[in-house]
Amino acid sequence: MGHEDFMREALALARANLAAGGRPFGALLVREGQVLARAANGIHRHHDPTAHAELLAIRAASTALRSARLDGAVMYASGHPCPMCLAAMHLCGIAEAWFAYSNEEAEPHGLSTARIYAEMALPPARQERLRLRSLRPPGEHGLYGEWDARRPA
Amino acid sequence: MGHEDFMREALALARANLAAGGRPFGALLVREGQVLARAANGIHRHHDPTAHAELLAIRAASTALRSARLDGAVMYASGHPCPMCLAAMHLCGIAEAWFAYSNEEAEPHGLSTARIYAEMALPPARQERLRLRSLRPPGEHGLYGEWDARRPA
Repeated sequence: MGHEDFMREALALARANLAAGGRPFGALLVREGQVLARAANGIHRHHDPTAHAELLAIRAASTALRSARLDGAVMYASGHPCPMCLAAMHLCGIAEAWFAYSNEEAEPHGLSTARIYAEMALPPARQERLRLRSLRPPGEHGLYGEWDARRPA
Repeated sequence: MGHEDFMREALALARANLAAGGRPFGALLVREGQVLARAANGIHRHHDPTAHAELLAIRAASTALRSARLDGAVMYASGHPCPMCLAAMHLCGIAEAWFAYSNEEAEPHGLSTARIYAEMALPPARQERLRLRSLRPPGEHGLYGEWDARRPA
């Protein structure tokens, strides 16, 4: 099995999901030639907007392996990963990802996340679609020091 | 209940999570003064690296409301949201978010995601921690057109 075979399987997952009433996205997570997880977009099933194929594959693999780190794993995604999924890969150490369909191809079909990427690349003060602001209640302090005191050495 | 009360509750969730062996992050999702969901970081429970408080709150609220859109909801997060969680908010229409502890404060405790933000803001070709590349198997075409043909009008 090579890159192209894994990608064909991700695409087959996307098409099977379409046939089942879902969105056209599938993903495969592979490490050392072994498939760790397969997933397809699940928004149609539980209305969960975070149920993207790549995120579900990460959740399935990490839960099965009992590890929040997936270093060395390779993601095969039918479509260009959105920034949520790309950041999730960063969080668990995935350093290689492949996609078959670009955001440019997705745009006319309402499936591109290029606009969110563009927004998030702006300096925080210029991001207008989502206002993210600091709010520190008086007297609040030291939360992360409490974490240092509790976490395993 | 005002902004500050909701934030205090998010911070209480973070501290309760610490006491339960988890990470110091809590989040509250509120719309029109009503709490839609409460969550705390759950990585310690199932090893799922995507189980951030904000993401779990979005999943809980959308599943309960049977809607992948959460327009009008406001996120109160104890810590600065990571890019995965920020993108998830974009995906479901959350346009306002507040945090109590900054990434700068998180950095000395190993809890900052500023490095991932910086990496994702680079032009794709300059992103080196995660190589995201196109791979289109020969003969593959038309996936998103198939979605157009199937999706509800």
